[in-house]
Amino acid sequence: MLPRWKGKDKKAKKDAEAEALREPMSKIISQLQSSLIQSEACGFLSDNNVQLAVGAEQIDLLDKACFGQPVRTVEKDVVWFQLSLEEAFYLCYHLKCLKIKDGGSGIQSDEELWTKIKSKNKTFPYFYKAYSHLRMKNWVVRPGALYGVDFVVYRHHPARVHSEYGALVLSHDDDKDLNGRLNVWSDVHCTTRLLGGVAKILLVLYINRNGNKDDSPLCLANYTVQERTITRWIPEQSREKGSSC
Amino acid sequence: MLPRWKGKDKKAKKDAEAEALREPMSKIISQLQSSLIQSEACGFLSDNNVQLAVGAEQIDLLDKACFGQPVRTVEKDVVWFQLSLEEAFYLCYHLKCLKIKDGGSGIQSDEELWTKIKSKNKTFPYFYKAYSHLRMKNWVVRPGALYGVDFVVYRHHPARVHSEYGALVLSHDDDKDLNGRLNVWSDVHCTTRLLGGVAKILLVLYINRNGNKDDSPLCLANYTVQERTITRWIPEQSREKGSSC
Repeated sequence: MLPRWKGKDKKAKKDAEAEALREPMSKIISQLQSSLIQSEACGFLSDNNVQLAVGAEQIDLLDKACFGQPVRTVEKDVVWFQLSLEEAFYLCYHLKCLKIKDGGSGIQSDEELWTKIKSKNKTFPYFYKAYSHLRMKNWVVRPGALYGVDFVVYRHHPARVHSEYGALVLSHDDDKDLNGRLNVWSDVHCTTRLLGGVAKILLVLYINRNGNKDDSPLCLANYTVQERTITRWIPEQSREKGSSC
Repeated sequence: MLPRWKGKDKKAKKDAEAEALREPMSKIISQLQSSLIQSEACGFLSDNNVQLAVGAEQIDLLDKACFGQPVRTVEKDVVWFQLSLEEAFYLCYHLKCLKIKDGGSGIQSDEELWTKIKSKNKTFPYFYKAYSHLRMKNWVVRPGALYGVDFVVYRHHPARVHSEYGALVLSHDDDKDLNGRLNVWSDVHCTTRLLGGVAKILLVLYINRNGNKDDSPLCLANYTVQERTITRWIPEQSREKGSSC
């Protein structure tokens, strides 16, 4: 399946593709990274997200890079962005451009932050590994609840292109909290049919700890990721010409 | 949600509804029952279905009552119908209008048939209870694989009306083979979104054995069925006028 660029007609779609090529996601992310480092950006850890106050330039960069979502506030010239825990940890740990404070206890080290987030959400290491795996390949990763998946994955900004994949995070590790999906055929049918209906492919990311513990973010380097796409088998399209089965 | 009768325009839809009222499903099933008893119908148990040879009148009645599907054959004036195990057992055990033979061992008693089917498919008692529960209320029940559910449920013949429910069979019993669905939120989202997209409601039938064994079909009488529909919560539609949440 080819990427489906957005636009009213062929020309507009071509333009969207050309713009995306001119301004690749890697470049946008670098700009965001520099800007956040320069301003010594610092977010606040909340229950299940991180709140970050930013000015006009960074609003634009966060939007272009597809991190978080703006929250309405009454302050002038300042917008609060709400980052998911995966997004915040990616900016903090991988891109080293965001510090994060927790209410009483000041700026958190990577280890402290990792431990705190993990205590709120046991499956965070798996979801973060999946998120960072895709982001490091310059895919744009957004929440997928609307389509019953963990993430939806775009080739570029959602304003320019439709998402190509609906991603589920699973594991071959024995983890009950994680492996609630695709255990039975009817679930596979349901997921592929829904995603097929909105022109997406089901991407399953199997994150395996390989026996490594998760007591520090350093362990992430030893986790492995297996990527699988699952699509419906359509006999008419799949058989050789003249074959009868 | 009201039943969606089929037809090109309002008049055709009204006609479909009127026809369905004139010829209710209970009447069609009675006709099928009488016809099968009169002809001493006998099917053959195969791997995961029952094969039944029928003549012109019964082809029509099976089709109108939505049992099985015709299989192409070369014999003149005879059509083989392939019945699902639930359908065959319903005709045999509940409507008492079908005998079933198993290859070498002749006509099977209800108990023999029950044991044989159960040995092929451990979850059969649950699925049969769900199937018969809906059929006894004169709903038409068809396989739901296309929509990632166990059954789709129609108010009348699928030619006259769209199906209203996609049904999943679950249980509060501790049965791993059965309870692979709706364990995680993303699965619930996926299922309700898919069914919502095709104007169906998710119907969950919880079949509970209540400690009864399944060594004879007589146990079915002691199984209970809990019916639950699950729909998406749309705040705009659900809140009181003027409320802010």
